[in-house]
Amino acid sequence: MASFDDFVKPYGLVDKVDAFGYLDYLRTQPDGRAKRGQVILVTADTPLKASRGEGKTTTTIALIDALRERGVDAAAVLRQPSMGITAAGSKGGASGGGKSSLAHPELVDWGLCGEMAAIENAQNLLVSFAEKAVDEGVLDTILLPRVSEVPSRALRQIMVDRGKADIPERVVLTPTCELMQIVVLSRSMEEVSRRVAAMTAGTKDGRPVLFGSFVDLWRITNMLSDAVKPAMTTTQAGSPVYVHCGPFANVSLGIPSLVSVQMACARHDLVVVEAGYGADAGAQKWLDIAAREFGAQWPAAAVVVTRATTWRDDPALRWRYPFHVRRMEGLGIPAFPLVNLWEGEDGEVDDLRRTTDQLGLRRPIIGNLFRDGGSALAAQLDDFIEVLQEGRSHGAQAPAEALRSHKGMDLVDQLRWIASSAYGVPAGRVVCGPDFMDSLAAARALCKGQGLDLNDLVPVAVKSPATMTDDDSAPEAERTVTLKKVEAHTGAGLIQVNLTKSLTTPMPKIV
Amino acid sequence: MASFDDFVKPYGLVDKVDAFGYLDYLRTQPDGRAKRGQVILVTADTPLKASRGEGKTTTTIALIDALRERGVDAAAVLRQPSMGITAAGSKGGASGGGKSSLAHPELVDWGLCGEMAAIENAQNLLVSFAEKAVDEGVLDTILLPRVSEVPSRALRQIMVDRGKADIPERVVLTPTCELMQIVVLSRSMEEVSRRVAAMTAGTKDGRPVLFGSFVDLWRITNMLSDAVKPAMTTTQAGSPVYVHCGPFANVSLGIPSLVSVQMACARHDLVVVEAGYGADAGAQKWLDIAAREFGAQWPAAAVVVTRATTWRDDPALRWRYPFHVRRMEGLGIPAFPLVNLWEGEDGEVDDLRRTTDQLGLRRPIIGNLFRDGGSALAAQLDDFIEVLQEGRSHGAQAPAEALRSHKGMDLVDQLRWIASSAYGVPAGRVVCGPDFMDSLAAARALCKGQGLDLNDLVPVAVKSPATMTDDDSAPEAERTVTLKKVEAHTGAGLIQVNLTKSLTTPMPKIV
Repeated sequence: MASFDDFVKPYGLVDKVDAFGYLDYLRTQPDGRAKRGQVILVTADTPLKASRGEGKTTTTIALIDALRERGVDAAAVLRQPSMGITAAGSKGGASGGGKSSLAHPELVDWGLCGEMAAIENAQNLLVSFAEKAVDEGVLDTILLPRVSEVPSRALRQIMVDRGKADIPERVVLTPTCELMQIVVLSRSMEEVSRRVAAMTAGTKDGRPVLFGSFVDLWRITNMLSDAVKPAMTTTQAGSPVYVHCGPFANVSLGIPSLVSVQMACARHDLVVVEAGYGADAGAQKWLDIAAREFGAQWPAAAVVVTRATTWRDDPALRWRYPFHVRRMEGLGIPAFPLVNLWEGEDGEVDDLRRTTDQLGLRRPIIGNLFRDGGSALAAQLDDFIEVLQEGRSHGAQAPAEALRSHKGMDLVDQLRWIASSAYGVPAGRVVCGPDFMDSLAAARALCKGQGLDLNDLVPVAVKSPATMTDDDSAPEAERTVTLKKVEAHTGAGLIQVNLTKSLTTPMPKIV
Repeated sequence: MASFDDFVKPYGLVDKVDAFGYLDYLRTQPDGRAKRGQVILVTADTPLKASRGEGKTTTTIALIDALRERGVDAAAVLRQPSMGITAAGSKGGASGGGKSSLAHPELVDWGLCGEMAAIENAQNLLVSFAEKAVDEGVLDTILLPRVSEVPSRALRQIMVDRGKADIPERVVLTPTCELMQIVVLSRSMEEVSRRVAAMTAGTKDGRPVLFGSFVDLWRITNMLSDAVKPAMTTTQAGSPVYVHCGPFANVSLGIPSLVSVQMACARHDLVVVEAGYGADAGAQKWLDIAAREFGAQWPAAAVVVTRATTWRDDPALRWRYPFHVRRMEGLGIPAFPLVNLWEGEDGEVDDLRRTTDQLGLRRPIIGNLFRDGGSALAAQLDDFIEVLQEGRSHGAQAPAEALRSHKGMDLVDQLRWIASSAYGVPAGRVVCGPDFMDSLAAARALCKGQGLDLNDLVPVAVKSPATMTDDDSAPEAERTVTLKKVEAHTGAGLIQVNLTKSLTTPMPKIV
């Protein structure tokens, strides 16, 4: 009789789990030895600046340490940080901080077991195969971008085959690429393979050409054989943590792989899942993409992280935090405010309690998690644990409406729905930018050419992580959302939609 | 009391060894518990085509399996193949074949534990830091190329920062880059760090600028922390094999890391080391670079692999194989011919024996290693084992002349020496191509600007793997070697010298 351990191999300082194999094994086990863990979504306020984190990873780590201190079998699922960005010093790592840290932050921050690098090489190899297809007349225009895990301003716009074909290209950051999305969403290597086959390589005489028509798919799946396995490690306090895939909720999914969450749910009672940036980014994507369209777990509760400064630094943006919390509650997800205190902010606890009280939110969980770790939270988790126990005994589920697929709905209507539900901008104030309809028409034609209805692709908002609308500081009645352009990721089954203040560059520079 | 096992961690299907730590530990152990293994160099005839291997890896694997069958404590040290090239299908992997294979060829061929990818990312990050230095006015011209593990014709010549600075660049294949050379040659992380600091980033107003002047070196060494650890695996028959670093003996070092060989020598009586391409490539580099200038082990014997076809396919090139074998013997290295038979060639054994006999070579070891594995060799190893035992009891060493450093000798004289000793072309027929002296003067000035004498850098020949001279088919008296250009790798302490039919493109295409 197999067990979980048969799917685990030590990998230096961490373990790697053959999650595809383990989930397959569970499916064939009639005795149903798997747990049915509840997912807690850790999300946050929209950050005041794109580079500013509210401390979601630190919170996630402190939270599971505290829950385990309370006797709850809790685990965390984190996203793998972008090594390039960390190495470059553009951003801290994503392995917590202080007492709320992973056992091996240096490893997680610096490339883990090479997962991101393997995905980078595999997508770049697809581009090289596309080049060969151009040489052989199978393709005339390559649409898939090359990727780099290392940020470089100079790679934003490049010209390849200089002096010969002189082809303009752009390079995108690995964690945001279509192949990363495929690894995040797939539940088996067969699914990875099928999705890679359905990726659009480019066009020939204007008609789409898919990778499946000219690439040996086993070459790509071979390259990904270790990258698809979640890493397993612990917090410094020894709580179990899984790390797998996808940062950058502003330009991509920004959530950990679906298999890593599914596996964790089969092994633990509570699974704390971190989603990137604010609730308008990673949480919106977990709910509207992962849960609704790809069968991921609907959260039994949410923890919405913020800093004490939310209510003082920018009064014009104060509306965002309660908006996020209320949106979760409106979806039937008990949403707990959590204030991650910085040094010198201990005196603000009473004020913060008053503020959340006035806003009609649940009693906030407050602590300096960097300094005090999970112990700062353990005593404050009575309500939280109770709500989850109630949810479990009542079999709380997602509202049927929240899980009804939007596939087939007109894309612009889908985007109006997102703007209204996640950004607070009604349908009437969602406007199309000057190039949007052309971009949409082109993408629709490309989809049609491969027998796909563009409306069946799931939209992924691409926008600044620091704003939800064209101007978050404007009065509510004047806020708008401008749609700018689309790009189909046919393999992942997604359509990237640039909106509001979307990034104009595909790659960060070193700062 | 520590032991070797304390420096080993499982890493998926293989183990990784902290070789730096283990060698440090051995240095501090007064009881000298280390073995003093003899190195056997596996080299080959110059291949008839660049893409053709003679079967060195297959031979290396069969040889240690056979030696162990004979009761000898033998291990192999292999180079890590270029995953990109394998993935692209341009070349087979480098994990042997048939019965002479590694236990996990799929792993070794497809990226191993991400070592190559980490080196790629680290060198690319150095380029990104150089970009930042340009933005900050510290640098005006970047000289270090970006690297890619994935081959791409279109990346040979690129233009970055398109539409703004429009800077022409080239991309080189990861296994050939300076950072890979540094990992091959370094014996501690401090040495890696020191060498990275001494890498030339570029120039400011014509004066060289080193990376050490503006990069936090710990960022680079952090990225390399797993990549510097050799992988440890076995053949399918269970013989121990270490795999670490550097293919491509035609354009770079083409030898495994020096620490992996040193570590293997501390643990085994016989260590079979594979060097890339023909004896004019990897073996020349092992002897003249690794052993003479960087303190690597002088071989106690060599095995010179060839195919049965060597003596029939191209009569004009027949001179090369005996030249290689005699060169080794001339250096006091007993050199055993080994003929790696293909299917259908079993009937040629007698003919092959006659040929080697006529050439005055040692009795050849002959077998179909793919089909029969080490068993095909075991009975033929009497002479081989005897020679090594004699060498051991007589304390055979390298001739003093062979180990006397060439540092400080005029570079052109050093190259004349290589042409004469390794390619059979006397000094007088080594000619300078039209741009060579300019290229040399520029490199000399760049070195001088950082207080370095170019003549202290060790030359690395960059040439087609299929030729040693401008025309190997020409009569002996007419063969020449043309020097084309140089490029200093100041961090690695090497100077790349393009000669004869050197590659004109820095990167292969997918074929």
